[in-house]
Amino acid sequence: MAQKPAIPKGTRDFLPDEVARRTYIFDTIKSVFKNYGFAPIETPSFELSTTLLGKYGEEGDRLIFRILNSGEKMKKADLEALQSENLARFANSLAEKALRYDLTVPFARFVVQHQNELSFPFKRYQIQPVWRADRPQHGRYQEFYQCDADVVGSDSLLYEVDFVQIFDQVLTKLQIPGFTILINNRKILSGIAEVSGESEKLIDITIAIDKLDKIGEEGVVKELKEKGVSDKAIEIISPLFKISGSNEARLDQMKSFLKDSEIGLKGIEELEFVLNQTKELGLERAEVVFDVTLARGLNYYTGAIFEVKVNDVKMGSICGGGRYDDLTGLFGLSGLSGVGISFGADRIYDVLNELNLYPEDTNAGLTLLFANFGDKEAAYCMKLTKKLRQNGVDCEVYPSAAKMQKQFKYADNRKVKFVALIGEDELNKGQLQIKNMESGEQQAMTETELLHYFKA
Amino acid sequence: MAQKPAIPKGTRDFLPDEVARRTYIFDTIKSVFKNYGFAPIETPSFELSTTLLGKYGEEGDRLIFRILNSGEKMKKADLEALQSENLARFANSLAEKALRYDLTVPFARFVVQHQNELSFPFKRYQIQPVWRADRPQHGRYQEFYQCDADVVGSDSLLYEVDFVQIFDQVLTKLQIPGFTILINNRKILSGIAEVSGESEKLIDITIAIDKLDKIGEEGVVKELKEKGVSDKAIEIISPLFKISGSNEARLDQMKSFLKDSEIGLKGIEELEFVLNQTKELGLERAEVVFDVTLARGLNYYTGAIFEVKVNDVKMGSICGGGRYDDLTGLFGLSGLSGVGISFGADRIYDVLNELNLYPEDTNAGLTLLFANFGDKEAAYCMKLTKKLRQNGVDCEVYPSAAKMQKQFKYADNRKVKFVALIGEDELNKGQLQIKNMESGEQQAMTETELLHYFKA
Repeated sequence: MAQKPAIPKGTRDFLPDEVARRTYIFDTIKSVFKNYGFAPIETPSFELSTTLLGKYGEEGDRLIFRILNSGEKMKKADLEALQSENLARFANSLAEKALRYDLTVPFARFVVQHQNELSFPFKRYQIQPVWRADRPQHGRYQEFYQCDADVVGSDSLLYEVDFVQIFDQVLTKLQIPGFTILINNRKILSGIAEVSGESEKLIDITIAIDKLDKIGEEGVVKELKEKGVSDKAIEIISPLFKISGSNEARLDQMKSFLKDSEIGLKGIEELEFVLNQTKELGLERAEVVFDVTLARGLNYYTGAIFEVKVNDVKMGSICGGGRYDDLTGLFGLSGLSGVGISFGADRIYDVLNELNLYPEDTNAGLTLLFANFGDKEAAYCMKLTKKLRQNGVDCEVYPSAAKMQKQFKYADNRKVKFVALIGEDELNKGQLQIKNMESGEQQAMTETELLHYFKA
Repeated sequence: MAQKPAIPKGTRDFLPDEVARRTYIFDTIKSVFKNYGFAPIETPSFELSTTLLGKYGEEGDRLIFRILNSGEKMKKADLEALQSENLARFANSLAEKALRYDLTVPFARFVVQHQNELSFPFKRYQIQPVWRADRPQHGRYQEFYQCDADVVGSDSLLYEVDFVQIFDQVLTKLQIPGFTILINNRKILSGIAEVSGESEKLIDITIAIDKLDKIGEEGVVKELKEKGVSDKAIEIISPLFKISGSNEARLDQMKSFLKDSEIGLKGIEELEFVLNQTKELGLERAEVVFDVTLARGLNYYTGAIFEVKVNDVKMGSICGGGRYDDLTGLFGLSGLSGVGISFGADRIYDVLNELNLYPEDTNAGLTLLFANFGDKEAAYCMKLTKKLRQNGVDCEVYPSAAKMQKQFKYADNRKVKFVALIGEDELNKGQLQIKNMESGEQQAMTETELLHYFKA
């Protein structure tokens, strides 16, 4: 019996128009990355399990797709582990390889492995799918693309400046009407913890402050107390809840707040540099906002932290990024500072769909279809298609002399722009009929005129 | 302890220049597919195991990478199967999903699943990686790309004509100096078996004849005897060994040989149509050769069979294809004829490397690097990069005021074409120095002249 066709939950097929839309997004991102001096790399879809495991926390390890060892190796299954329900160990005995979970860890592995072939600072972009065994749900997939650009081997803040420009350029090119680049610096967060006298509670404090928007000042205070932050520290921190005004005003307030923290003031200085240079360069559509509550993967970042949100659309961030001081240390190469950003292509795809922002010709349509009136006419049309294709015109001959109605229906479905009608009469007279499928207008032209028309 | 970085055997990292070369190949293939009216689709990297298993023979099943079920599902491991060394069954109990093994079966599944969203004939191209658990060896990888174009839903021979043109166009654009498109028709092979009175030995006969080049007439006769083909049949077949001359001459000889086989003559008629139309249209660099011994995956094809070889390079075929009458029948949709071709991107990559055929600028180089003389100068250069980037010039500022030697070494490694030298003097005078890294020439220009120079 024939199988009912289906694909795994959480995965997607892309039909031609969808591929065209996604290609438009990827190409836009790629062209800007390239424009800013980033070069492409690619890594294998699967890595050794040992490369990935333990890099994303316990939850991450569970979500990594493992590849079953082939053949005889399966006999090494650790049945004791299975019996004692140590599923992680059971999986390890059966799967030496695992699918890429993100692009950052493979990039770190790549840099260390190829360090003698690369020149530093190394600026790479990478646009490839990643896989996560997340429970499939609306807008969350088991296979999706990440679009990353990173520099490794320099602590220059000029790269932070460039990344702000890249966010602005890409999203402006994609016609997103308004978006906000949130920016913060991990050193400022460290300074806050230091000033409050609770450096060891840095993470708790940051997580609580991060919720200010949602739970208000009272909620934050409550959470801080629950986490054991002292009343004195809370009192010191509380002015942060009122920070407001322009970026400059916020920076002034923070400078005063952090006046006794060296690391905090260093963070302010870095942030000021990026904001000042950004002001000098100007932005197309982005607004940059210093958000002292922005934390994103705090344990990871050591300097700048970025996040981008689309204005007036209910959706999480569509881009993120930041600086990390020792990414490649995991693989034995210490002291290389890195900074990078990531575009969430699937969320951007959803935003563009929701706001209907694709350029009109972003589809897999065809420029010209030659209707088929029979073998002799088709043979003539085949010759014409050859000439037109050489001039870059996407075209084809309908494959059989079917009824015109059927041929036009095909033209409609394929979003064909023009249909050429060349029957015996036209062939004899040398007068080809070209129908504009949008306007419905029909026009007679000679072969030379046709070639000229589509060249233009 | 830090891990020593490595990737699984049979997989590859691609550095920037390699990605640039591969992108050049993919883009060339894509542009021709599109030019001939094919539209892109994408399918998930993994399919349900049941979609793939049993479609590629026993050997194929063994080479399919399986994805280990996550979490609690692992407890369903069929330990009896493991004990009785039924590893296939053990694998089935542990892996509901499997990585794509080729693009054809997923395409068939796709067509059936989306039949109501597609218009037929449906012309799709698909350029995606596939995975096979082959023993890694030189030139054979566990992850590699396939580039396929297929039409499903029409038996028109115009598509065969188009595919011959596509082979010619793509490989000519890739500058491959000489290549041969071998063409045959499964119906001719059926006719040969019929005429010899041994229709049920079709496969044995074809496999033997396929070896004529390698083992000579005597060898083929020996093999036929071993396979139990009767002496009488061998006598009937033997004139095939002498078939020679132009395509027309060969066709004449085969017409006479197959005069009593309806299906054989049908095959000749189809082949003649394709060859005649191809002659009318002309070819750039390809030679088309009717090769009556060409069989390729005989069980699969039902009409035309294609194979492309590069002249004067020791390597198997770089492209293949053919017509199959009932591909989607596997998934419950019968009666759709299909025809398709595939470009082996990795072999083409090897050929272009061996013959050094890449256009000169196929690398991940940078057009212009601004040397960094300090904060003030760098800030000025950042503004210039913004203007240049808006004009499409790929450029960047060196991230710190390092020694010039170091900055120039970076420029060399990055294959930078021009370096801009803008120190305090140049800044004050408004005379920027631009060094051509290839010729070594240095030129003074104003900002306006610079913008104009790189616009051109």
